[in-house]
Amino acid sequence: MPVTIRPAVAADSALILRFIRDLADYEKLLDSVEATEGHVTAALFGENPRAFADIAEIDGAPVGFALWFYNFSTFVGRHGIYLEDLFVRPEARGSGAGKALLANLARRCVDENLGRLEWSVLDWNAPSIAFYDSLGAAALDEWIIRRMTGDALRKLAGV
Amino acid sequence: MPVTIRPAVAADSALILRFIRDLADYEKLLDSVEATEGHVTAALFGENPRAFADIAEIDGAPVGFALWFYNFSTFVGRHGIYLEDLFVRPEARGSGAGKALLANLARRCVDENLGRLEWSVLDWNAPSIAFYDSLGAAALDEWIIRRMTGDALRKLAGV
Repeated sequence: MPVTIRPAVAADSALILRFIRDLADYEKLLDSVEATEGHVTAALFGENPRAFADIAEIDGAPVGFALWFYNFSTFVGRHGIYLEDLFVRPEARGSGAGKALLANLARRCVDENLGRLEWSVLDWNAPSIAFYDSLGAAALDEWIIRRMTGDALRKLAGV
Repeated sequence: MPVTIRPAVAADSALILRFIRDLADYEKLLDSVEATEGHVTAALFGENPRAFADIAEIDGAPVGFALWFYNFSTFVGRHGIYLEDLFVRPEARGSGAGKALLANLARRCVDENLGRLEWSVLDWNAPSIAFYDSLGAAALDEWIIRRMTGDALRKLAGV
């Protein structure tokens, strides 16, 4: 059965939240999920959104999604795409849905003259790492992501 | 001498490009820089920009910059700030300019109810790592950044 990709619409907000939660569960991070359906609707389907999603379907049924935003490389001097979430339902793995979602974003990069398609993967997620390796994605393992939230962020802000 | 932070304006494009090149040189990545002054002007100072910069000054003279964009956390359900570049001229290091640039972004996170302030650091950049540790920034060392560019990206796009 062929996989089709379509841009998400506002009526997909509950579906997207379910995918977000399913992915978090797979990543053993479900406790970290604070997002609500209202958050999804506001961020993706308001005016001038800064985050976007695509839905993968097989025979008209949603099987996965990609959620992304535009980043910017100062070295390349151009925008790129950062893929925040990529998820395919367990029963649809091996269908090509994950590759179709990535290929759709790669086409957008080419069409919009964007320099890079980037994402991150957990270092224990061997099946995903093997899949990304097979596509020829470089591993930027010299770079460590740093993050400030909560009290540390407010202390730095001086509030 | 106190450090002041101001939003960059179009007349700063040449200065910003110089900072980008100086940072790339420090990171031993100067060969990777393709950005031009025109790229900077187009991305930061066009209509509805998706990338932003702040300039740090001491006694009216620019000593550093921060270049950033809005990311999005599906787990938090909110936007955050991703700091793409942070650079302070060697002669101004220790002045507090780097911390002032970060604190300015932390304040923006609080003011705009953004969930996270994030950036990346090269694993050999010990002085920066010590500085980020001192601020209480978490190191997300389980996550590996993956990147597709050039031929691999076009092949995936099927073009």
